[in-house]
Amino acid sequence: MINRFCKHQLWEVTPTLVAVAQGLQPADTVIKGAKLVNVCTAEIQEGIDVAIARGRIAYVGASADHCIGDETTVIEAGGAYIAPGFLDGHIHVESSMLGVTEYARATVAHGTTGIYMDPHEICNVLGLDGVKIMDEDARRVPLKTMITTPSCVPAVPGFEDTGSAIGPDDIAETMTWDSVVGLGEMMNFPGILSGSDHAHGEVAETLKRGYAVTGHYSLPETDRGLNAYIASGICCCHESTRAVDALEKMRHGMYAMMREGSAWHDLAALAPVIADGKVDSRFAVLVSDDNHPHTLVEKGHLDYLIRRAMEEGIDAVTAIQMCTINCATCFKMNDDLGSIAPGKCADIVFIKDLESIEVTRVLIDGEVVAENGKVLFDPEPFAYPEWAVHSVHIKDPITPASFAIAPGELDPDATEVTVRVIGVMGGRVDDEERRANIAVEGGEIRSDVENDILKTFVFERHHETGTFGFGLTQGFGIKRGAMASTVAHDAHNLLVVGTNDDDMAIAANTLIESEGGMVVVADGEILGHVPLPIAGLMNDLSAEEMSRLVGKLEEAWAEIGCSMPSPFMTMALIPLACLPDLRLTNRGLVDCNTFQFVDLLVEE
Amino acid sequence: MINRFCKHQLWEVTPTLVAVAQGLQPADTVIKGAKLVNVCTAEIQEGIDVAIARGRIAYVGASADHCIGDETTVIEAGGAYIAPGFLDGHIHVESSMLGVTEYARATVAHGTTGIYMDPHEICNVLGLDGVKIMDEDARRVPLKTMITTPSCVPAVPGFEDTGSAIGPDDIAETMTWDSVVGLGEMMNFPGILSGSDHAHGEVAETLKRGYAVTGHYSLPETDRGLNAYIASGICCCHESTRAVDALEKMRHGMYAMMREGSAWHDLAALAPVIADGKVDSRFAVLVSDDNHPHTLVEKGHLDYLIRRAMEEGIDAVTAIQMCTINCATCFKMNDDLGSIAPGKCADIVFIKDLESIEVTRVLIDGEVVAENGKVLFDPEPFAYPEWAVHSVHIKDPITPASFAIAPGELDPDATEVTVRVIGVMGGRVDDEERRANIAVEGGEIRSDVENDILKTFVFERHHETGTFGFGLTQGFGIKRGAMASTVAHDAHNLLVVGTNDDDMAIAANTLIESEGGMVVVADGEILGHVPLPIAGLMNDLSAEEMSRLVGKLEEAWAEIGCSMPSPFMTMALIPLACLPDLRLTNRGLVDCNTFQFVDLLVEE
Repeated sequence: MINRFCKHQLWEVTPTLVAVAQGLQPADTVIKGAKLVNVCTAEIQEGIDVAIARGRIAYVGASADHCIGDETTVIEAGGAYIAPGFLDGHIHVESSMLGVTEYARATVAHGTTGIYMDPHEICNVLGLDGVKIMDEDARRVPLKTMITTPSCVPAVPGFEDTGSAIGPDDIAETMTWDSVVGLGEMMNFPGILSGSDHAHGEVAETLKRGYAVTGHYSLPETDRGLNAYIASGICCCHESTRAVDALEKMRHGMYAMMREGSAWHDLAALAPVIADGKVDSRFAVLVSDDNHPHTLVEKGHLDYLIRRAMEEGIDAVTAIQMCTINCATCFKMNDDLGSIAPGKCADIVFIKDLESIEVTRVLIDGEVVAENGKVLFDPEPFAYPEWAVHSVHIKDPITPASFAIAPGELDPDATEVTVRVIGVMGGRVDDEERRANIAVEGGEIRSDVENDILKTFVFERHHETGTFGFGLTQGFGIKRGAMASTVAHDAHNLLVVGTNDDDMAIAANTLIESEGGMVVVADGEILGHVPLPIAGLMNDLSAEEMSRLVGKLEEAWAEIGCSMPSPFMTMALIPLACLPDLRLTNRGLVDCNTFQFVDLLVEE
Repeated sequence: MINRFCKHQLWEVTPTLVAVAQGLQPADTVIKGAKLVNVCTAEIQEGIDVAIARGRIAYVGASADHCIGDETTVIEAGGAYIAPGFLDGHIHVESSMLGVTEYARATVAHGTTGIYMDPHEICNVLGLDGVKIMDEDARRVPLKTMITTPSCVPAVPGFEDTGSAIGPDDIAETMTWDSVVGLGEMMNFPGILSGSDHAHGEVAETLKRGYAVTGHYSLPETDRGLNAYIASGICCCHESTRAVDALEKMRHGMYAMMREGSAWHDLAALAPVIADGKVDSRFAVLVSDDNHPHTLVEKGHLDYLIRRAMEEGIDAVTAIQMCTINCATCFKMNDDLGSIAPGKCADIVFIKDLESIEVTRVLIDGEVVAENGKVLFDPEPFAYPEWAVHSVHIKDPITPASFAIAPGELDPDATEVTVRVIGVMGGRVDDEERRANIAVEGGEIRSDVENDILKTFVFERHHETGTFGFGLTQGFGIKRGAMASTVAHDAHNLLVVGTNDDDMAIAANTLIESEGGMVVVADGEILGHVPLPIAGLMNDLSAEEMSRLVGKLEEAWAEIGCSMPSPFMTMALIPLACLPDLRLTNRGLVDCNTFQFVDLLVEE
């Protein structure tokens, strides 16, 4: 594929590179005395120099002294390791709650030089116009932001209302955009498996271009279903939670993107596939998928994932291959990215040592863009258009009475009913459908705080349809108060969970006023609030400031009794009907294994 | 890249594949009970079934019984191994002296399902029209014949006369052809290293299309020169003769194509790089480059190379990766070729066991095309146009007097002079410039048979220019007679080597009469003769018949004293000025390290 993310296309600069390599013309930059993490051969080579010209690598070898001229910048590596710039093969920038500029600021100093961004959150809210503004924002910073066009907007058609919808024609159009390199995660695996024209049409428009179709196959079935899913042309998937999932994907020629995000920690389960050394690791990739700002600030990005992979027994060089050459090859961009070799973009990470994976310097297109943990670029804040920062449109005022659960089919004399409950689990993307007996008072079902069963509502917030869905959730462990969020995958309607109707109403209205965000309320008081005015998903504050706000939000969750890691990320998945087992959208409760609406009440 | 070598594009058949994988629709073919050589994970998986529909793989797993319908062809593997179809990443079909149809007949039964053909021999003689007729011939057989457009016609501009010439505009045009997937071996490394617009222009036209630029870097220098060469965008090279050559290429992100052809045997030297197990083998590929029909008939093709790699210590699975997934990835065709996985073309080789690598059955696009060493296709002979079978155009009649070597600068009284001698070595592509003192008789230099120094002539044969070059060759060890060939890389002028002028004239005239070929003559008698009327390079006889003729030619060489393996292939390289050290073209002797014409006589 023609990669439009380089300073210069290779064919524009080959005579220069060739001259520089031979010492006939001076390099722009020379790195001296590094230990090369050679991801092509999986070796460490000591005493390596690199010469760079016009943003690309001209020479890698024992001495680049012949490439040094008067104007050449010489960087003494002092025995540091150099590795190709780290690539994240699957991320949603919106999950960081940061604009792309701030996301770049937060990640580049950690060694990230390229991301494959699936902006499906903003696309659900604002459509392709939303994708375009994130793209525009991204063009202002050195981070290479490759876009995979969101494929599943809505995530599971017919089960929720979104702000926008995407189809094969939209996909065909975006495949002509310079910044698009593939199709975003095909979460509609039911559509793929049932031969839906819509899903196959989107894949076809991508394959016709020769681009990568990225996947999302979260079923535990690794035989017929997985074969069918891969046979449809989908080349990678980040939804493995068991070693067998990742192994079977790799065996079937699919890139197993092993995820370690802020809330989803799959590496402990998946790393043994690679760490055991029994299989070729070329189809293994490390990705973050979703990171909130706190993780980026406190732990890092792919540098942290490499450390985590090493903790799980994967050697450093293999772990680095997993977020460099393997990822670039998955996206057919290995001609330009993913290795330190002649002709490639000079995207280079300096690493202090292979134990700490501490990134001390980052080059993108031959320019030093970060040093000692600080980025060297500082663009003006991005000017978001009015329609992007005013996206919460709720039809009816929300009051405590809005949270009454009194299903018509409820026997007026009942004192207890059996209900379906969404059982959430910390650090996992899947949930469980549970059954519970719950008391009925005055014809209404109420939250059963003692048994950790909480009322849950999703209000449509894009087109003022006035629709909402209700259900019950178990697993957060809170004892008082309520939480709300306009980050509510993937439709990003207004999600409210709580112990009592008053706090639920305050939580909902707080977010309506702040044009989106996340909030924790208890006893009428706002304990934590992250305003997210950009599409109800992001804020243009710095990562540090957002981390502070999110930290405070997390504390607020703890204060009302939740001990889950990043519980707001787990909560935000409650409406995501492409994940098993039971989910709640603005249209109602969905059995996500059979893809049918189900009642809250279980028929005896 | 969009691969036009499949029965159906993947996007045309995904709904079918998805249905078949799930047992909702019957497969066309099911393979049962195989041992899968899984090149994705480098594992052997036992008890594997494969379901195929519309030429592609729908399912790979423990049981494809659910894919079997009334019309499904079921192939019981009976415990045989299955591997992806073998791909030869760099070959010149013309070296086999067979048309593409016959070449396919000779190789497909050995497991070859795809070749990356660089038709630069015919292009030197007949230009792009010659390439087109080979392409047309190829379309009639199942073998996937991918073309890399010849880049170096002439091989080293200014040093020889060819039938045709290729430049960047021609390259740009051919990149739009359905059958072209890259640029043929860029032998003009001096042009690349010196920044020639012509060489860089050809590379640029290929890179703009996102296609592979294949290489030919035969210098022993693996630092500045190799870096420069790779920085120009060239992604693979089959000219490694020492382990360090291959290793440095792989380290620099270049595919090291390890060659084992009929006359060039590089594997013994190169295999340790992989066999040692110290480096990731993903950048290693097995190629044949040049095979004569005898080798194809007697030893096989890539099956033989896999056996050879195993003899040199490479394990079977790695060796198979080297001519399947690694090769397909090099050419960015791994979406369709190179592995047995859902969605891929059903190009599948059955192997009796991993010791013999005996190929018992071959499928291409899901059709059985060979069984037990016999191909099942049998097209009509290809109808070559008149201009293709009448290509030997010599200006002046050739007589014994044509072979007088009496350089003007020769001192008329000299009885001995010091001369440059081309020193050839069996089984190697490089030669040596040697010096020798040679007797002068009657103002003429004669062959010194005792010291194995033979007169050598190259007559231009394309445009009747009447030009010729002369020199002396050492190394064949013949004691009488003469040899001639119109296979004389890459200009394919008429090459004659001999002990005496009479036999040299007979040899030359025999080939003029047969419109090209190879011949051995002694004492006025033709001992062996392979007529090659198609462009002076090929014949449309069967591989077996050609093997017999070539075998007889080889016997003839032995009869007159040569013990080299396939000496006619070594001889045919005498004019190839892109290989070191000293070569002879129709324009004269060329020092191929400095790229200058040099005199036969060494100035004292």
